[in-house]
Amino acid sequence: MGCFKGYDLIMNYKNYFSYFKNNSNEIYFDSAATSIKFDEVIKAHSDYDLLYAANSHNDLFKNAFFSNQMLLETRKKVATFINAKNENEVVFTSGTTHSLNQLAFGISNLIDNNSKILLTKLEHASNLLPWIVVAEQKNACIEFLDLDSEYKIDIDKIKNKLDSSVKVVSFAMNSNTIGISNDVELITKLIKSYNKNIIVIVDLAQSIIHNKIDVSKWNVDGVAFSTHKMFGPFGLGVLWAKENLLNELKPIFYGGGNNIDISNNSYKLAKPPHKFESGTLNLSAIYAFNKCLDVINEIGINKIIEYPKSLKQYFRANIDDSIIKKFNFYNLDNDQPILLFNLLNVNAQDFGAFLNKKYNISVRVGKHCARLTSDLLNAHSTIRLSFSIYNTYEDIDKLIIALKDSDSWVNEII
Amino acid sequence: MGCFKGYDLIMNYKNYFSYFKNNSNEIYFDSAATSIKFDEVIKAHSDYDLLYAANSHNDLFKNAFFSNQMLLETRKKVATFINAKNENEVVFTSGTTHSLNQLAFGISNLIDNNSKILLTKLEHASNLLPWIVVAEQKNACIEFLDLDSEYKIDIDKIKNKLDSSVKVVSFAMNSNTIGISNDVELITKLIKSYNKNIIVIVDLAQSIIHNKIDVSKWNVDGVAFSTHKMFGPFGLGVLWAKENLLNELKPIFYGGGNNIDISNNSYKLAKPPHKFESGTLNLSAIYAFNKCLDVINEIGINKIIEYPKSLKQYFRANIDDSIIKKFNFYNLDNDQPILLFNLLNVNAQDFGAFLNKKYNISVRVGKHCARLTSDLLNAHSTIRLSFSIYNTYEDIDKLIIALKDSDSWVNEII
Repeated sequence: MGCFKGYDLIMNYKNYFSYFKNNSNEIYFDSAATSIKFDEVIKAHSDYDLLYAANSHNDLFKNAFFSNQMLLETRKKVATFINAKNENEVVFTSGTTHSLNQLAFGISNLIDNNSKILLTKLEHASNLLPWIVVAEQKNACIEFLDLDSEYKIDIDKIKNKLDSSVKVVSFAMNSNTIGISNDVELITKLIKSYNKNIIVIVDLAQSIIHNKIDVSKWNVDGVAFSTHKMFGPFGLGVLWAKENLLNELKPIFYGGGNNIDISNNSYKLAKPPHKFESGTLNLSAIYAFNKCLDVINEIGINKIIEYPKSLKQYFRANIDDSIIKKFNFYNLDNDQPILLFNLLNVNAQDFGAFLNKKYNISVRVGKHCARLTSDLLNAHSTIRLSFSIYNTYEDIDKLIIALKDSDSWVNEII
Repeated sequence: MGCFKGYDLIMNYKNYFSYFKNNSNEIYFDSAATSIKFDEVIKAHSDYDLLYAANSHNDLFKNAFFSNQMLLETRKKVATFINAKNENEVVFTSGTTHSLNQLAFGISNLIDNNSKILLTKLEHASNLLPWIVVAEQKNACIEFLDLDSEYKIDIDKIKNKLDSSVKVVSFAMNSNTIGISNDVELITKLIKSYNKNIIVIVDLAQSIIHNKIDVSKWNVDGVAFSTHKMFGPFGLGVLWAKENLLNELKPIFYGGGNNIDISNNSYKLAKPPHKFESGTLNLSAIYAFNKCLDVINEIGINKIIEYPKSLKQYFRANIDDSIIKKFNFYNLDNDQPILLFNLLNVNAQDFGAFLNKKYNISVRVGKHCARLTSDLLNAHSTIRLSFSIYNTYEDIDKLIIALKDSDSWVNEII
């Protein structure tokens, strides 16, 4: 396994994922788009449907009672995982996009034509477009925080953007393209020390298993993440926000379960979290996510965070100049387990297809839903590799062989 | 099996549902809240995660390509199932509530302070509250269509409510409380003959496997339903609308996949259905729903519609005066497979608990998220039994025994 030293993190994490028995030749480097799911998650999802099945909007019979207890228990586990104070601050949504839209449009009541919303140009469309639309509706203003040479939020320049019109600052802790990890605690401290009423929202889609999450220590107001990017099910996300913000937010969905009274023309909403959980919840997924958190805790979040980073370090340690001069690596040096690159003078789509066709390496190519980032990097399209616990040092060895073989891309894909 | 004659529909539908092997003593009468899922659905859900797993926002590698093809194929199957003209009119959502909120808030652009929205007092909160909020935001007016003595929309009185201010008429084909089945085709014809521009929305949550659905023949503008009420997965719904309406609607979610360009302050949305499908779709559920439609087609939708109705007919044929005089049945005579009732002078919650505790009959008790219906029926709370294909005539026999034993409720639950 090459000349890499200094890491003692090699585990057979693949044992948690039968997917790789069914796709034994694939090198899956698309975990930033979606992670493979733990076998325990897949089993728990089936178990809910085979054993319990009930809807949760009542608790009169055994399985409906189970459903309600399970829901409460899962909220508590999520609260513990992100160090939230209160499980009633944990709202189940259909995913990060739902959570961020709920936050943005929920907050829009507090935005007017004198308001400013601060974002970064690295944001994924789901943390960019909702705010652009809110600004459009309210005739408010969007501005972008300055980034430093590594594309992190430039700590020293934050104060330049703060004025009395700033109502919200929203940013991803980790970019879905070039990785980077923003210091959420410090950024929030700087913002709140200027004005404690500025609402700080953090998109954790790419962070939830790549960083330790501590919403209390950070003192942020709201966060969003999806379970399918943390070895959990599709179709489920979390919105966490401070109780007082949840009380102020208006829902974007209305319906069964989010109200306690309706008359012909008026209504009274339920308290959070129910206020934001109209309609039948994705209960099989919530049960699966409950078990997902158990497995994460069993492995240990620190190992889940560190091991994929070690794969990137291993890559960095084992490539030579022949590779470095042929490729444009946009983020080789940061420690996040994402590699963004292009083969010089070759269309990203073409080289991505080559990696897949000749080496069975699954990658993502394009703008990765972060359209302003393309301008920032001056790259129309890029190849993204993202590493997770089921990847191995052997996968990286094969990647390096594939990159060394880059001259043969034309022959392979025509 | 009692004195019931005239039906030749007895099938062992329970073979499709292993849930009942795991809950062999339960009589599950809560299918209007959520149906038990086909084994094929549960297996397909796992299969997606174990075999394919990929996200669909790219198609560069084998499983991502599969995901995209599967998505397209499922859209086509849904379009065929509801007789829609074009699979691009089929939008995947997280459920009926999401679909109805998307329709209501999407249409809100077309609503102003001279607009009227017509509903019925039988609507579930998810087809009531979104419209009340839209009306509140736009200072528009909500009115309720008259119902006939069976609580169906009174065909003869529709025209009394139509005037030039009516922009939308939205109603459930089947009520989630007292059943009833509105004649969607005739109602739509009457509305459209008055003004073809009135938008007709139909909540099909309770109808999708209890009626033949034909959006083209009906000439409605939009419908909504959930897959978990049709033996399919949680966390997935469908919004179908005519292409020209989808083109006009504004999304309620913005994010990855729903745009084709974003600059610092402007954006260009993708075409339907993608315009409404921001974020990662619930792909395991979509694959499971694809297989769900196969099983429905294999059994035959006519049998799925008729058999549960036969259970209600069997109930009606086998109860005697001793039962009829002790209970208040709100909808004994309509043919929909829902029974709404109360034991006279006894709290619904108490008698529901008795049915569960002594007879293992799972029922739902309360207002069933249809708060205006309680006023209509003059019943604070009711017991709802809903029948599906996995229920048997023996289940009904046991129900009748339980109802005959009603005098013992106090002893059982104290």
